[in-house]
Order: sequence, then C-alpha cells, then structure tokens
Amino acid sequence: EREMHAMEQGSVQEHGRSRKLSKIWVINEHVRVGLAETLSTYVMMVFGLGSVAQVVTGRGAFGEYLSVNVGFGLGVAMGVHIGGRVSGAHMNTAVSFSMCLFGRLGWRMLPVYILSQLIGSFLAAGTIYSLYYDAIYHYCGGNLTVSGPKATAGIFATYPAPYLSLHAGFLDQVIGTAMLLLCLMALSDQRNQPAPSGGEPIAVGLLVLLIGVSLGSNSGYAINPSRDLGPRIFTAIAGWGPEVFRAGNGWWWVPVLAPMVGGVTGASIYKVFVELHHPSPCEHRRELEDKAEEEAAPLDMQKNLSPEVCV
Amino acid sequence: EREMHAMEQGSVQEHGRSRKLSKIWVINEHVRVGLAETLSTYVMMVFGLGSVAQVVTGRGAFGEYLSVNVGFGLGVAMGVHIGGRVSGAHMNTAVSFSMCLFGRLGWRMLPVYILSQLIGSFLAAGTIYSLYYDAIYHYCGGNLTVSGPKATAGIFATYPAPYLSLHAGFLDQVIGTAMLLLCLMALSDQRNQPAPSGGEPIAVGLLVLLIGVSLGSNSGYAINPSRDLGPRIFTAIAGWGPEVFRAGNGWWWVPVLAPMVGGVTGASIYKVFVELHHPSPCEHRRELEDKAEEEAAPLDMQKNLSPEVCV
Amino acid sequence: EREMHAMEQGSVQEHGRSRKLSKIWVINEHVRVGLAETLSTYVMMVFGLGSVAQVVTGRGAFGEYLSVNVGFGLGVAMGVHIGGRVSGAHMNTAVSFSMCLFGRLGWRMLPVYILSQLIGSFLAAGTIYSLYYDAIYHYCGGNLTVSGPKATAGIFATYPAPYLSLHAGFLDQVIGTAMLLLCLMALSDQRNQPAPSGGEPIAVGLLVLLIGVSLGSNSGYAINPSRDLGPRIFTAIAGWGPEVFRAGNGWWWVPVLAPMVGGVTGASIYKVFVELHHPSPCEHRRELEDKAEEEAAPLDMQKNLSPEVCV
Amino acid sequence: EREMHAMEQGSVQEHGRSRKLSKIWVINEHVRVGLAETLSTYVMMVFGLGSVAQVVTGRGAFGEYLSVNVGFGLGVAMGVHIGGRVSGAHMNTAVSFSMCLFGRLGWRMLPVYILSQLIGSFLAAGTIYSLYYDAIYHYCGGNLTVSGPKATAGIFATYPAPYLSLHAGFLDQVIGTAMLLLCLMALSDQRNQPAPSGGEPIAVGLLVLLIGVSLGSNSGYAINPSRDLGPRIFTAIAGWGPEVFRAGNGWWWVPVLAPMVGGVTGASIYKVFVELHHPSPCEHRRELEDKAEEEAAPLDMQKNLSPEVCV
Repeated sequence: EREMHAMEQGSVQEHGRSRKLSKIWVINEHVRVGLAETLSTYVMMVFGLGSVAQVVTGRGAFGEYLSVNVGFGLGVAMGVHIGGRVSGAHMNTAVSFSMCLFGRLGWRMLPVYILSQLIGSFLAAGTIYSLYYDAIYHYCGGNLTVSGPKATAGIFATYPAPYLSLHAGFLDQVIGTAMLLLCLMALSDQRNQPAPSGGEPIAVGLLVLLIGVSLGSNSGYAINPSRDLGPRIFTAIAGWGPEVFRAGNGWWWVPVLAPMVGGVTGASIYKVFVELHHPSPCEHRRELEDKAEEEAAPLDMQKNLSPEVCV
Repeated sequence: EREMHAMEQGSVQEHGRSRKLSKIWVINEHVRVGLAETLSTYVMMVFGLGSVAQVVTGRGAFGEYLSVNVGFGLGVAMGVHIGGRVSGAHMNTAVSFSMCLFGRLGWRMLPVYILSQLIGSFLAAGTIYSLYYDAIYHYCGGNLTVSGPKATAGIFATYPAPYLSLHAGFLDQVIGTAMLLLCLMALSDQRNQPAPSGGEPIAVGLLVLLIGVSLGSNSGYAINPSRDLGPRIFTAIAGWGPEVFRAGNGWWWVPVLAPMVGGVTGASIYKVFVELHHPSPCEHRRELEDKAEEEAAPLDMQKNLSPEVCV
Repeated sequence: EREMHAMEQGSVQEHGRSRKLSKIWVINEHVRVGLAETLSTYVMMVFGLGSVAQVVTGRGAFGEYLSVNVGFGLGVAMGVHIGGRVSGAHMNTAVSFSMCLFGRLGWRMLPVYILSQLIGSFLAAGTIYSLYYDAIYHYCGGNLTVSGPKATAGIFATYPAPYLSLHAGFLDQVIGTAMLLLCLMALSDQRNQPAPSGGEPIAVGLLVLLIGVSLGSNSGYAINPSRDLGPRIFTAIAGWGPEVFRAGNGWWWVPVLAPMVGGVTGASIYKVFVELHHPSPCEHRRELEDKAEEEAAPLDMQKNLSPEVCV
Repeated sequence: EREMHAMEQGSVQEHGRSRKLSKIWVINEHVRVGLAETLSTYVMMVFGLGSVAQVVTGRGAFGEYLSVNVGFGLGVAMGVHIGGRVSGAHMNTAVSFSMCLFGRLGWRMLPVYILSQLIGSFLAAGTIYSLYYDAIYHYCGGNLTVSGPKATAGIFATYPAPYLSLHAGFLDQVIGTAMLLLCLMALSDQRNQPAPSGGEPIAVGLLVLLIGVSLGSNSGYAINPSRDLGPRIFTAIAGWGPEVFRAGNGWWWVPVLAPMVGGVTGASIYKVFVELHHPSPCEHRRELEDKAEEEAAPLDMQKNLSPEVCV
C-alpha cells in the first residue's frame, strides 16, 4: 500500500511539475507506455505481414492485393485499440517524431517509442515466419530469395518496383507519409470535423487502407520506418541474408528516412492550410452558442406561433 | 492583439448584420474557407486519382475496379475530415451550386469555392503525375495517349465508353449527380434519418463508393465539374495535348455542365418527395414528446403494477 | 393557416383516438408515407440494379459479384436514410407484411406500402434501362433475351440457377428472408444489442450485403417481392416479353410468395428464442440500475480508500 | 401473476445472495442464455458456412476468398446482435472457456454455452446443407468427398493445407485464437480504447474478418471448437462419412483443443502487456478529471482574456 501511495504522489507531483519521487513514476510510465506500444505494433504487424504472406504463398487462392490493404488497414485499427489510451499507439516512428516536433510528445519519450516499435515489428516478423514457415517453404521450394519469380522477402519488408528510381522512391515515401500525417492531424482536430469519439481506431485504419489502395504500387507503402526496418533485420538474420539491404539499389534506408520528412511536411501543410485559420477561442465559443441555439430552434420555433395554433 | 480585437468585432458585426470593419473579416473568411476547400479537394483527388493510376499502371496486380471505388469513396471521406467544419468540404462545384440555389450558401462565396476546387484538383493531378511518373512511362513506353490500348489520360480525367452517345452521356451525368445530391440531402436532413453525428464523412464517402459501384461504367462517374476539369487541363499541359478536349466527341463539357443540372434535380426530388411533407414544428415537437414518453416507458411501466410486486 | 390548424387538430385527435377531421389527416399521412416509401425503394433499386447492369455489361472490367453485394447493401442503407423516419423505409413487402402481423404497422397502411414499393422499383428499373440503354444494346447486340450467354433480363429481376428445383428455390427464398427478418428484429430490439443509434441504415445495409455474400448464388437473393416483381413487369413491357414470367419453370411467383412466409418465420424465431425471454420490466429496471451503479463504480471506488491515499 | 411474482423474488434473492426459490430462476436463466447462445451461433454459422458454400459451388462466379472473410466477419457481427446482451454471444467455446478462467463467467454456465454452441453450429450446417443441396450435388456430381478436386467437406469443417504438418497446424490455431482473444480483451477494456458503445458487434466482426484475411490460408481459421466440431459431426452423418475425422492426419482435434490454449494465451498477453499497468482507480479518477477540465477548456479559455475582448 505504501508503494502505491508513493506512486500516487509521484503522479501528483508530475502534474504539479515537482520532482520528488518522480523517478519511480517515470520508470513505471516508460514501462507502461513501452509495453503498450510494443504490443500495439506487434498486433498491427502480425495482421499486416500475415495478409501479405497469405496472398503471396496462396498464389491468388487466398486473397488478392485488396486483402493486403484490408490486412494493414484493420491491423492498424486493432493496434490503436490495443494501446490507444496508454501510448497513443503510434506504431510508426514518423508519427512519434512528428508528435515530438509539434510538442504533443516529450522528446525524452521518443527513444522508448522507437525501441518499442522496432521490437514489436521484429517479433511480429518472427511470428509470421513461424506461422507461415511451411507455406513459405512450400511456395519457394526452400530457396529464400529477395528477387525473382519466387521471391519471399517482400512478405516482410518493402522493395521498390523495378521501374522506380531511388529519388522517385524517396518522393513516393515522402508523399505517402505526408498524406498520412495530414489526415491524422484532421482526424484528431477537435475544432474541425474529427473522427467520431470512439471511432478513431477505425478511422485511422481506413486511412491506411486508403493509402494502400491509392499510393501503394510504387514501393509497397511502408510510410513507416518501424514497419519496414524491424522485419528487414529479421529476414537478414532468418535466411535471406544481407541481400535484403542491397536490393533495389540499397532501398532499405528510403522507408526509414523519407517518412520522417514526409510526416513533418504533411502535418505542417494541415497546420498552414487549416489549423492556423481556426477562429480564436472567443469566436469558437460564440459559434458553439449559435449552434446550440440553432439546434434548439425546431422546438422553440413555436414561440413565433400564436398559442391557439400550438397547444 | 488589436488585430484580433478587430477580427472579433468583424465577426460580431457580421452576426449583427452591420457592415463596419467587416471588409477585413470577409477577406479573412474567404481565405480561411478557400484554403480549406482547396486542401479538401486536393486530398480527395490525390487519393482518387492515385487509385486509378495504381490500377491502370499495375495491370491487375495492384487492385481492380473496386479499388478505384474505394479510393474515391474513402478519399471523399478524408476530404470531408479535412475541411468539413470550415468550408463544408463540398469538393464539387455541383454541390456548391446547389447549396447556393437552395439558400444554404451565399452566392458571393461561389467563386471562392469554384476556384479552390479547381486549384485543388489541378494540384492533385500534378502530384499524382510526379508520384507515378516512372510507373506511367514504364506502362505506356513514354507515349502519352488519350485512347488506345495503353491510354493513360483516363488516369486523370473521365472519358466515355466507346458505345456511349453524347446525349446518353449527358443523361448519365445528370442521373449520377442527381442520386448524389438526393442522398446528400437525406444524409443532412435532421428531421429524417440523417448520418449519425460525427459519421458524416464516412457516410458521404460510402455514398460516392456506391455511385462508383452502380453508376460508373458508362463514363467513369465524374459527377463533379471540379474533379474532371482541373486534371483535364493539367493533362493538356503536361503532355497529352489538346486531344484531351477533343476525345469522345468533345466529351469534356459534359461532366462540367450535366452535374449542375443533375445536382439541382436530385435535391429538388428529395424536397418534393420528403422534405416538404415533414410535419410542422408544432407537430414535430409533439412527436418528440411522444417519443420521449415512449422511451421512458420501459422504466415507468411498473406504475401499472402493484407495489408489492415491484419494490 | 386555417388548413394547418385543421391538420394540427387532426393530428391531435388521432392521438386522442377521436375521429373528427381525421380524414384529411389520414390522406395527408398516406401521401407523406407513400412518397417517402416510393423514393426509398426507388433509390435502393437504382443503386442495386445499377450495380448488376454494370457488372453484366462490363464483362468483368467494372466490378464483380462482390460489387453487386455492395450495390444492394449500401443501396439499402441509402434507402433507409431517405425514408427512415417517415415511412420506416421497409422497401420490401415481406417486411411490411411482417410488421403488420406483429402489430408494428396498421393493416390499413399495407396497401400504401405495397403500391409505393412497386412503383418505386418499377421506376428504378426504367431509370436503369435508360441509363444503361447503350451499354445493354452494345453487350447483347440489341437482342434482349432472358436466358443464354448474353441474357440481360437478370439485370432487372432474379432467375434461379439451372440446377435449382422449384421447391428448393422456394426454400431458398424462405430461408433468405427468414435470416433477414430474424436479424432485423435483433437490430431493432432495444432490450438486447441493437444497432447503435444513428447507425441503423448502415447496419441494415451490411445485413443485406451479408445475405448476398452468403445466400445469393441459388437464385440471386430477391428476398423481397417488391424488388423482384416491379422490374420483372418493366422488362415484360420494355422488350423482353412474357418469357420473363415463364423462365425457370414460372419462377416469378416464388420471390413474391416465399419471402412472405420466410419473413414471418424469421421474426417468430427471434421472438421464441430471444424476445420472449427478456426479463419483465421490473427486472429490466433493476438491471439498468445495477448497471448504472456498476458504471459509476470506477469513480466511486475511492470511497473505500482512506482519504490520505486519495486526495 | 403468482408465477411472475415468484420469478421476481427469485431474481431479487439472487442479487441479495439468498437462495430461496432461486432454483426456478436458475433454470430459467439457463434456458434464456442457452437459447440466445444457440441462436447467435446458428446465425453466425449460417452466414459463414453459406459464404463458403457459395464460393465453392459457384466456381468463382459468386464471390471469392474475400467473400468468405466477409461472410464470417459480418456473420459474427450479426450473431453478437442476436444474443449480445443476453448470453454475451460468445459463439466460441474458446471464448467461453477464457471468460470462465478469468472470472468473467461462472464455471457452472460453461456446459450451457458449450452445448448451445454445438447445437447452433450443427443446425446451421444442416440448414446450409438443405439450402445448397442442389448446388452441392450439381458441383460434385453427387459424390461427397473430403479431398480431391471436387471436395465439398471443406464447406462445413476446416481442413489443413496439404503442406501443413500437424504441429504447425496446432501452432496456427494457437496463434490465430490468441490474436482473437488478445484483441477482444482490448475491445472490451473500458480503461483503454474500447469499441465504441453500440459498435461492439461490428468491431468484433471486423476482427474476425481481419483474422481471415491475415491468418487463414494454412487451415481455414477455425479458431473456434464449436464452429468446427458441430459441422464436422453433421458431415459425418450426412454422407461424407468417418473420413471427415481421418483427413489431414486426424486434423479434427486440432481446432478443438488448440483454440483453448490460444485463447488463454492471448488474453494473458493483453493482461501482462497492458491491463496490469492501468493506473489505480485514484489515478484513473484524477485522469478523468484532468481530461474533463481539458475538454471544457476551449469554452473556459476566455477566463484568461479581458472582458472587453470577449463579451
């Protein structure tokens, strides 16, 4: 009970910006957030990678490209359910980085997020590898390759289309992640038309599904350093070898770096085009009052009618 | 702070229908609405055109016709999230025009909406052209054509099916846009069964998806002058040339003009069949009271039971 | 103003079960409900039939079987938005009939519903015929047939699979409509787990999509006399001739009669298995109180803690 | 009336932890819960099995693998609507077993759930067999086989892919059910980001759809002893014979046992990674207060402004 008392006080002090005993609280908070972010990312990635594994090894009999869009889209939605109110369930270092840059997350939490996301996606790659081990070996005849007609490395990490130049691929990842963050900003902007309360997970999931449907064919819409690097490291270890870092002209660093640039760009565009122009709090209050009046109107409208008409 | 004070007063005066200082406020409001409408349209169009580009250049490996329906449907939903409570996120001149005609939008705002929508869709076409530049050139071998087996102009603007006569195409666009506006009227009619509060974006998105699934094969369901004209102008400049205006017997003006006619028709049909027959405010109030009573009934029902049964 | 006064009184008297002046009110109510039901059915059918027309004439390039499921599913959702709070948007005579039988709709309203639904679906068939006239003629070479490789009558009404016997088809329509009504009863049962408030249209739409995905291949899941008979009459007139009534061993009466039997069966099953066993109002009240207490608990839990722990 | 009185008192005493007359109440509660659980499972299984039957016998013309995912996904959603607030609509013995183990369901109710789920899924298999009798016989030429090119036993129960070893299949079912329970725990955790109130059925349905899209190709994602065993027994009786228990190296017991292990594992992982780290009630209360303050802030913010600015 004393320990709990200490934790309580730690929490109180944090709010009061005092520092006593807060070290214990900080460690606990790091563990709490880190575990939730790890599990969120893990769940999202198991569903996402699983859908790719199924489509690739199923040769058209167990889903198609649209299934992969659904797999990652709803996978993200479930990930948000897993850690949404604990860590925020970023599951994406580009999101965490943008949150830090715009002051919605303390910089000292960033390493916790990055590490958790990498661990989560690495473990998910391992899980899918175990789960589809027989299927993958049956599909490729035991020959784990990164390119060619029976390539299976693409189940885990993304690789660019053969026609894509490296700088076009960089632009592809910048634009994809910019669209992601731009829309995430809108979905959480309470002074605009945000996702309905409780519907945030599915709204974010549909956004990711949409990006897959629209901006995915160039290089597999990683738009997320954690989603790509963790599984790539896993495949390097599990049998595909260092080729996973060499393929596509050394593609691997593009989905790590470009999403950082894209995320900040997208969030900034939303701020410049919409958020900065929101009315001030006073105006906002007046608008809300007007609206409340307006909504009450259908019932109060009869004030304008003579009493004998409306009893 | 003084500037903010002035803006505040501008706002107050607008509500009070006075004119002093309102010029600054009006300019600000135009900028605010214009930017939001531009970004809404841009986001919707990037997702929509992106899905077409992916399906066309992917030759069946990266989605199918249904992906395009999802791309434009969810693209519209995200567009509504971007500008919904600022500009209303019409993203469609036929919608803005109908809103003006039925008194839901001041005519003097119409040019702001038309211009913003055109700029947004033009910029989106440019974005998708840059993003899929390598893919488009790889697909068509660098030969940008409007018709033929490797035509790519259809990624950006709509073209009629070969069998479609021009007047049948006009009817196609009138009916498609009529269905859109008819349903939009219902989705926002608070005295009927509207979209649930907060769920408007997804409801409108599903409506557009539905139109694509049902009324799309004749001419690609533009049902929106802004969606079609902006990208068409872009392709004329970017390499497809004046053929984009000549193709389909000079099809280009049909998705510009017919949706205006269709939008007003559809909204009128909803008004004549449903809205005009809503009970008067008094009746409505009485209905609400009845309903409230009814809903309370399960709890109050025990009044009819003797006290010893129900303690 | 006097007329409105009279209407008002009519309405009052209706509630008070008196009869004076109520004739005018009744006529107005019939018109109001009839128009809304007509437009609901029309909208649902335009989207539904449109999706079939597009899939058939598009030969795989503009959607697939799943598109038809989406077309009818979301078409039903939009139909509910159109007339939901006016006529209830049954859009299906089997639904109206069951509502009458279980006392949720007065029998004297049934003819209004049946007529409105028939008119709505007939007009929708005409609209889709006009809209896809060029496409249909291009597809079948101007030869409107009911069966054979280029049959187009199936765009409008349903026909059984070649292997289906008539009595198996009857069972198919009974079970399909039973599942529809069984689930509709649950979706509207406020003492169970109903569709969320405001989400009724999409819930009903997903139910119809689901029936199409699961119970559709035998005979095209009419499960609705109005959906089938109106368009069948239209095709008989528009060029397909009396063969539309002869095909499939005189199939046409099956989707008219069997859904009536199935609807009542399904609703009864829900009543027997679930509704009859709901706790009595007293019990229900007690349950609600318990639940309210329980939900408040997380906040009140600290009553059990000493004040120095929880300030 | 006296009977009702007795029932009432039974209910009162149950709440008051007294035992008089409670035997009648217990029997009634068992019947009530059992019937709802039976109907829930039945509805879910009719839609699920129906979608498989349609895809298999339709040879690609009436849906694809994705249709089966939708069939089981939305089927589960409808099942939850049918019995959600009566029995909880587990429809899955692995769920019921985990609920018992974690104290959310009394062990003495477990047999009622297991029996109801088996009866429901057995009856559903019978319904789908009757409904698709002509289609199945037309498809396989009257030869009901468990394996081979025209196998139809897979319409009812699951069978492993030819490449799958038995222990890999066991792992497949453990992981699949673990993901199910892990996410179900999150969807119902009111101190995290649960499914929105009223949206539980669709959230659970989308979860099952997602598992089918991601983790289904190895062995058909039974992840549910009741879903698999009931229909398997039915096929053994209805004409496929004892081969349904021999096929796949005696696969039948894997989807019966492995989901039990997986369910408990998944629920435990959520507890260890997230639930155990939730703040204590006091902390939680403080957080809610902070949040309430924060949300009120936009309106109260003007307290910081001088009165002449904000009137």
